[in-house]
Amino acid sequence: MQRYFIPQTDWEGNEVRIKGDDAHHITRVMRNKVGDQIICNHENGSAAICEITLLDQHYVAAIVIEWKHEEVELPIDVTIAQGLPKGDKFELILQKGTELGAHAFIPVKMDRSIVVWDGKKTEKKLTRFAKIVKEASEQSHRNKIPEVTLPLTILELINESTNYDVKIFAYEEEAKVEAHQSFAEIVNRIAPKQRVLVCIGPEGGFSDQEAAQLKQYGFNSVRLGPRILRTETASLYVLASLSYHFEELNGNNV
Amino acid sequence: MQRYFIPQTDWEGNEVRIKGDDAHHITRVMRNKVGDQIICNHENGSAAICEITLLDQHYVAAIVIEWKHEEVELPIDVTIAQGLPKGDKFELILQKGTELGAHAFIPVKMDRSIVVWDGKKTEKKLTRFAKIVKEASEQSHRNKIPEVTLPLTILELINESTNYDVKIFAYEEEAKVEAHQSFAEIVNRIAPKQRVLVCIGPEGGFSDQEAAQLKQYGFNSVRLGPRILRTETASLYVLASLSYHFEELNGNNV
Repeated sequence: MQRYFIPQTDWEGNEVRIKGDDAHHITRVMRNKVGDQIICNHENGSAAICEITLLDQHYVAAIVIEWKHEEVELPIDVTIAQGLPKGDKFELILQKGTELGAHAFIPVKMDRSIVVWDGKKTEKKLTRFAKIVKEASEQSHRNKIPEVTLPLTILELINESTNYDVKIFAYEEEAKVEAHQSFAEIVNRIAPKQRVLVCIGPEGGFSDQEAAQLKQYGFNSVRLGPRILRTETASLYVLASLSYHFEELNGNNV
Repeated sequence: MQRYFIPQTDWEGNEVRIKGDDAHHITRVMRNKVGDQIICNHENGSAAICEITLLDQHYVAAIVIEWKHEEVELPIDVTIAQGLPKGDKFELILQKGTELGAHAFIPVKMDRSIVVWDGKKTEKKLTRFAKIVKEASEQSHRNKIPEVTLPLTILELINESTNYDVKIFAYEEEAKVEAHQSFAEIVNRIAPKQRVLVCIGPEGGFSDQEAAQLKQYGFNSVRLGPRILRTETASLYVLASLSYHFEELNGNNV
């Protein structure tokens, strides 16, 4: 069943009014009719099976049939701080990271980022990013849409990091050290509902200075398996592992 | 250090002769000189740090300085049987799956595959696939290049599956069943060196008939976390989880 995220202002009790792209999607793409069912997500994270009651030229109206009780969100909040990568890799990270349950994304301007963030295009970029995470949330049947923030410098990120319980960064050099701290050791210490900040370097990795700064401010360096992952694969490894650990290995079924 | 996979025939004891694209890469892209070091992988899975001794117009010669003793391969053999997806998604799966340690890939023609495999382009396609997995193996510092097979039908895959110890398929419907078998329960039963076959449906998922056939022939249906993953994300979730489980959680460091 198709899922739509509806702004708070478009809910009135058990009635919902769907506008814009979503209304277009319902009428033109899905070609729904009165009586068809869709899933509408509220901004508070709840979701309901709704029945379409009216298809107007400008909006679609629907009424709640049944509120859903489902746990589809990771039990921990994982924010991906991604060194700005080349091309459309950041968009791949947003799409796949949303499917895999990320809570938020922070683009970070790093020493070895080849791409320079064009300030003039910020609004256009953030609009595009918001569209990607909204669509990926709908497609993956999530109840929340991840936030994508404005780009930060590494020092701004370090400043922001005081709001997190656990901080890690994927440091390729770590894979070469015999006595390194295991990613799993750190994961084992994370408690439900904690906030986790995961910092990933761009294509060229972290500069020595960045790695030293992150260590100094309490980021734990980890390796993500013994192979060398591309920058766009690292966050997906982290999110998939955390989902496996908290939702499958330590879920209700083992 | 850049890594190259050298065919068995181009090794002579501790001397190696590098030709073709790899020689071009060394001379033109990396602009290496005599005395520079590279890593050369033998087809038997071992790897050595080598020093360049000669740069000719047609080949590069190098000599082994030190054989490397590294464990970079997943301790289990994981084969991804992927329902043919649209566009270039299969290439993304090959590249990312290789980084994450896959042993082999089998494209599978499924009921809901929208793409039809064009028999006339088979040779060209397999050449392109072989290039993708070779480059991804080099980039991720692996010692083995995964195999990409000819496409199979679901019945051919079932026939082939008798060669595997553990067989699973990612079945979206499974996520909705309360008493489903957990992916982690199955992973917990996998022993090192076992062969694991992971079957993933195309965009539309498995047909009812395919799901019934796979179940009948010993494939365990699993969910991969509570969210719905796109077809190209499912195999990456499986590989990252298996790497986390066998290389980080149950590795030497916990």
